[in-house]
Amino acid sequence: MGAVKIQPDRLLADLDALAAIGDTGDGGNCRLALTDDDAGGRELVAGWMRDLGLDVRVDRIGNVVATRAGADAEAGLAPVMTGSHIDTVRTGGRYDGTLGVLAGLEVVRALDDGGIRTRRPLAVAFFTDEEGSRFAPDMLGSLVYVGGMPLEDALDLVAIDGAVLGDELERIGWAGDAAVPGPSPHAYVELHIEQGPVLEEAGVTIGAVTGVQGISWQELTLTGQSNHAGTTPMRLRRDPAFVAAEVTTFVRRLATELGGHQVGTVGRFDLHPDLVNVVAARAALTVDLRNTDEGVLAEAERRVREHVADVAEAEGCGAEWRRLARFEPVAFASAVIDLVEATADRLGHSVMRLPSGAGHDAQMLARVCPTGMVFVPSRGGVSHNPTEFTEPDHLAAGVQVLAEVLAELAEVVEVVE
Amino acid sequence: MGAVKIQPDRLLADLDALAAIGDTGDGGNCRLALTDDDAGGRELVAGWMRDLGLDVRVDRIGNVVATRAGADAEAGLAPVMTGSHIDTVRTGGRYDGTLGVLAGLEVVRALDDGGIRTRRPLAVAFFTDEEGSRFAPDMLGSLVYVGGMPLEDALDLVAIDGAVLGDELERIGWAGDAAVPGPSPHAYVELHIEQGPVLEEAGVTIGAVTGVQGISWQELTLTGQSNHAGTTPMRLRRDPAFVAAEVTTFVRRLATELGGHQVGTVGRFDLHPDLVNVVAARAALTVDLRNTDEGVLAEAERRVREHVADVAEAEGCGAEWRRLARFEPVAFASAVIDLVEATADRLGHSVMRLPSGAGHDAQMLARVCPTGMVFVPSRGGVSHNPTEFTEPDHLAAGVQVLAEVLAELAEVVEVVE
Repeated sequence: MGAVKIQPDRLLADLDALAAIGDTGDGGNCRLALTDDDAGGRELVAGWMRDLGLDVRVDRIGNVVATRAGADAEAGLAPVMTGSHIDTVRTGGRYDGTLGVLAGLEVVRALDDGGIRTRRPLAVAFFTDEEGSRFAPDMLGSLVYVGGMPLEDALDLVAIDGAVLGDELERIGWAGDAAVPGPSPHAYVELHIEQGPVLEEAGVTIGAVTGVQGISWQELTLTGQSNHAGTTPMRLRRDPAFVAAEVTTFVRRLATELGGHQVGTVGRFDLHPDLVNVVAARAALTVDLRNTDEGVLAEAERRVREHVADVAEAEGCGAEWRRLARFEPVAFASAVIDLVEATADRLGHSVMRLPSGAGHDAQMLARVCPTGMVFVPSRGGVSHNPTEFTEPDHLAAGVQVLAEVLAELAEVVEVVE
Repeated sequence: MGAVKIQPDRLLADLDALAAIGDTGDGGNCRLALTDDDAGGRELVAGWMRDLGLDVRVDRIGNVVATRAGADAEAGLAPVMTGSHIDTVRTGGRYDGTLGVLAGLEVVRALDDGGIRTRRPLAVAFFTDEEGSRFAPDMLGSLVYVGGMPLEDALDLVAIDGAVLGDELERIGWAGDAAVPGPSPHAYVELHIEQGPVLEEAGVTIGAVTGVQGISWQELTLTGQSNHAGTTPMRLRRDPAFVAAEVTTFVRRLATELGGHQVGTVGRFDLHPDLVNVVAARAALTVDLRNTDEGVLAEAERRVREHVADVAEAEGCGAEWRRLARFEPVAFASAVIDLVEATADRLGHSVMRLPSGAGHDAQMLARVCPTGMVFVPSRGGVSHNPTEFTEPDHLAAGVQVLAEVLAELAEVVEVVE
């Protein structure tokens, strides 16, 4: 067993309390970034951080970093950081993101309980707008934290509901004054649910995450000729709904054909005016492509664009692309991957290496410090869904591994008995 | 020339005045049925009816019938009726429906100007919710007028925005007390823009409409498994957006393959939750199929349903159909078609026979009396669109033909010089 004594019941209680905010009534959560419910979640979690005596700082993009001082305060050492996010998709579950943040707080409590001091400070963070569901791109707060996007550009982003990010941040009272980019941690380790079926299918408790798939998000707007659905002969139609549907089926065929880790999804598909008896004037859809291999990902992007150009031209429709997000595949630090794997093994948990199919704040932190992640299984591989679920035993195992990894990286110097 | 002296400028001025209500700022109109803008249009047109001294009655589904007395009042003769509707689709033009109503008023004015009395009364009507864009099915008011749907069922209909028809009718103050079904007219003749490209392509001014295509409107709801777009391997997906897209492309291919007058349209396509990084849980789309041949139309319906069953099963998705509207093809009265054709010819206008690709109130009235329609050309075949346009000369020709046909059917008995 490890030296840090986790109490899983406290973590479960915190997960319950946070899930009550933005409760969708079906077991799910909706705390879209910078909405009132997001603010409610922030108040709750930041309150817990202050209750633990942490030094809580809010930066100008609304990221919150709560720091437990290190034993060697005068050396000004960079902290070991853990964390994740507390915003959700519209039909989100209760573990995605929240687990990593609340687990960090449980690690702090366990260190306090055990009178354990570490040489380096330990920081628990939650980053703004990881999901990107309201303000694209996703992982926005951590992107700004590591200097990947100028603050001004981020504050100017417009939500799908028309709101401006900077205005919303002010409105909910979470525009802090800590500078961005923020200080680079010594290392970053994030606990997260897998959000996929791999660990469950393999019967393994802990995933030592090797990196993150590259992500390409694009929005395609198609314009045609709106017209009466009854009187316009088929040969004279310029129907953007038809082109959008062709693209949607192509994305499926392409991803299946490319195989391996390639996935492709059309998750948004909106027609205007969206009426039964009117040939649409405009269609907008999103194409989400991901792969661990940058070359194949770029090839998938190229082939989708070519197909759209061909089909739109044949139909006499205009096609306009907008890039919402693009991240190359990320490889985590082998020292951190090794440490996660060895720690899980030492604690008696089954463990395997795997890449992440989803984007995570960790991939942003990987730009500035050695980074890794700990995965625990998702029942049925389900996530971004009210039925998202991870067994309490798996949650406990994940927090225990996280605690030991953080303690190792932050260097335990003293245990007050 | 005919005996009834139409003044086209008055009609154009009325079209302008009505188009100012629900003006969408781009040349178009939005007066969805039983909205505040629909009520505004009703006030204006009913005011004109009263100004002309007509007997204006509102029935329990909100249809408005304005009657000019006949010379033989004591005989209790059924009126000759003309009319159409003043509601629009969300992105409607300014001629669809309104032309037929305002033309009827111009005919009344011209008869008054000329001191012309007819043996039978002449009625000008506008029917509630012809478009069906807010409350399906379309042609609702005229359907209830002819006894095709019980009043109670119509009042219980729920709008796409969740409102209940009866409540909205009360709210805007247009729930009248005249009984439905209403009295059967002696004959019904409706002037309408073609809403298709046939007359323009043929260079012909007047269409003598032979009947209306059969219409099938169905809504398909597909349910799958919402999940994370990055972590769910393609082989494990149950994606209703993919099935919906497959169906959309199939409808196009099928309509093209069946040829002739067959058309097929997917005009609504909605995903839930409709987010870039989430495999949808649910997709809803509408399938609009139309044909002048009932057998081919039924065959098209059957093949779409079979295709949906196959694709949904292969994807592991649920599929549920809901019928929104179904009308068999309608044939108009040959005596009325002949009269329209002969009148146009006599007045020196080019004329051709053609079926209507769109549904019209006339097809409902055809159930209870001899019925016909007069079409005038639509520029570019465009309708249900802000750029909908008909040349003033064509409008004038259409009203002139309508006036002469109505005068003939109502039997001119006296001209006061």
